[in-house]
Amino acid sequence: MTVSTAQMRFWSPEVRELEPYVPGEQPKIQNLLKLNTNENPYPPSPKVVEAVQAVLHDQADALRLYPDPDATALKQAIATQQNMDVSQVFVGNGSDEVLAHIFKAFFLQDEPILYPDITYSFYPVYSQFFGTKTKEIPLNENFEIDVKDYAQPNGGVIITNPNAPTSIALSLAEIEQVLQANPDRVVVIDEAYVDFGAESAVSLVNRYENLVVCQTTSKSRSLAGLRVGFAIAQSHLIAALEAVKNSFNSYPIDRFAIAAAVASFQDQAYFEEQCQKVITSREKLISDLTELGFNVLPSKANFIFASHPQHDAGQLAQKLRAQGIIVRHFNKPRINQFLRITVGTDEQNARLVQTLKQDIL
Amino acid sequence: MTVSTAQMRFWSPEVRELEPYVPGEQPKIQNLLKLNTNENPYPPSPKVVEAVQAVLHDQADALRLYPDPDATALKQAIATQQNMDVSQVFVGNGSDEVLAHIFKAFFLQDEPILYPDITYSFYPVYSQFFGTKTKEIPLNENFEIDVKDYAQPNGGVIITNPNAPTSIALSLAEIEQVLQANPDRVVVIDEAYVDFGAESAVSLVNRYENLVVCQTTSKSRSLAGLRVGFAIAQSHLIAALEAVKNSFNSYPIDRFAIAAAVASFQDQAYFEEQCQKVITSREKLISDLTELGFNVLPSKANFIFASHPQHDAGQLAQKLRAQGIIVRHFNKPRINQFLRITVGTDEQNARLVQTLKQDIL
Repeated sequence: MTVSTAQMRFWSPEVRELEPYVPGEQPKIQNLLKLNTNENPYPPSPKVVEAVQAVLHDQADALRLYPDPDATALKQAIATQQNMDVSQVFVGNGSDEVLAHIFKAFFLQDEPILYPDITYSFYPVYSQFFGTKTKEIPLNENFEIDVKDYAQPNGGVIITNPNAPTSIALSLAEIEQVLQANPDRVVVIDEAYVDFGAESAVSLVNRYENLVVCQTTSKSRSLAGLRVGFAIAQSHLIAALEAVKNSFNSYPIDRFAIAAAVASFQDQAYFEEQCQKVITSREKLISDLTELGFNVLPSKANFIFASHPQHDAGQLAQKLRAQGIIVRHFNKPRINQFLRITVGTDEQNARLVQTLKQDIL
Repeated sequence: MTVSTAQMRFWSPEVRELEPYVPGEQPKIQNLLKLNTNENPYPPSPKVVEAVQAVLHDQADALRLYPDPDATALKQAIATQQNMDVSQVFVGNGSDEVLAHIFKAFFLQDEPILYPDITYSFYPVYSQFFGTKTKEIPLNENFEIDVKDYAQPNGGVIITNPNAPTSIALSLAEIEQVLQANPDRVVVIDEAYVDFGAESAVSLVNRYENLVVCQTTSKSRSLAGLRVGFAIAQSHLIAALEAVKNSFNSYPIDRFAIAAAVASFQDQAYFEEQCQKVITSREKLISDLTELGFNVLPSKANFIFASHPQHDAGQLAQKLRAQGIIVRHFNKPRINQFLRITVGTDEQNARLVQTLKQDIL
């Protein structure tokens, strides 16, 4: 879509400058192996399907009614699973919406917020959208976060843990250092990938009044198609998120999504089993790619971040695509020689490794 | 939730001042007659249920995958039903989210936007949220919009048509006057209730480059539980909405909602039949209430706005509530002697009329 200068007069001036987020593509290719958006290779709990069927069976007429604007049943299911009080839970239309509300609620301060130079690429987009001042903190030469860098004056801190796209996790002790260094600012730990082997900071929430933990059902619960994310924090911080949410959209989560997500949180055994399968497959994939000469960063996520000393990452991504395998390549400074590869099933990972070995390397 | 002054230090200063929107309550009372949030008394098309069943049957595994971020299938279904091009359609998580994006995309200008003093009470909330300057234009003594009032310098115009909570509609000729008076500003016509007898401005979109029409599936399509709203405009304006949306949340509409809404737009016969039933019931209700001494404004919506010269509206609402009937009372200047009553089925409306007659008046 080309918009003429004359037509641009209708746009809010600040919107003319926006550089929106670009999600990983969702192509429709036959026999595609899609390892580009960190989706779970396994379906959600069968109880999710049953829950939606129950809505259709018992409450189809109720679709005419608004859902509970507070999604209390969902907050309660999350609170129970996370061992928190329902007043410490906030839910939104995917963790992207939760993060957007977090930026508005806490990050419009006089000082810049801090986040790594290499991290979730939506953070600078939110910052531009809301007018948040930012300061990017370079990862060290091993692509690690050095928590000492976050002990400087700031308007807030947001850290993805494990970080994306690097896959490297901080320890809880390191996160506590960041929390203690910033007693008057909110520290957000974005745990989209935490369930694949990292330690969750939810256990710190009752001790730190400045901590917000953000999670999603899109990865470890195989519900990317459903759009449910959540935040855990002390209730005085949740109150800020509710004020923001209720100034933007009263009913963000629909009746199917509420029922389906509740069922997912109630099936802890399935959840743990699928996470463990992904972790096991990840270790095998790392080992296989290392054998092919890749350098793979130590991953606690459901993806790996890998470079090959003899092969250009952009070209590798193109060659894989020609074979029907899509991985994510970020054409950005420092990381343009890396590929971010979602961990698939063992069979899918074997196809990736075999294709690299036989057809590409 | 009480937030202490000390805890407030974590909040963004501007968020401390927010006055969020308060949606109509969703109480859980036995034998409740809920006429307070303008929901449709009829269920959605049976094809909606079939479509969700098909997702469960054919694509339950696909819940692990993100939905199409552009919801192209849904845009296409809306475009077909509305006789527009797919590039002229924007979709969002309920029309509340669409309206929020509209405020950001077009209404951050140097001059104030104009809207009626009595209208959808979310407009001042969005304005505070995004920092939009506003100027409220009083309705005339008959609670009508006088379109001549909208021919003054402004940063944009937003008009609900039919207006809420007054239920009174403008003609297309009047809307064209507003469009012609504001060639350099976006004019938004919020048509949440248009399908119950008013004329849609969608037919003007190809002639007016400054027109955005916003609609919802929550009322006339009985899908309040699903959260799907949309806007129709020339593609250069849709581009602004897409830039905003993709700076906030890439995937706002889940797989169930996309499938269900597509099915609704494909069942035009059911849609028209339900709308006609509501219109017929509305006329009967207006006639019955008029007989009981109410003054009812001329409604083109699925609700009516009524006052009684001998009875205080707030007390009437309380007495109805005691009988299990909930209507909406706005304790605001000019309209605190009115009740906004959603049109129910003939049986529901008869219960309301009978209760008023026998137990209250």
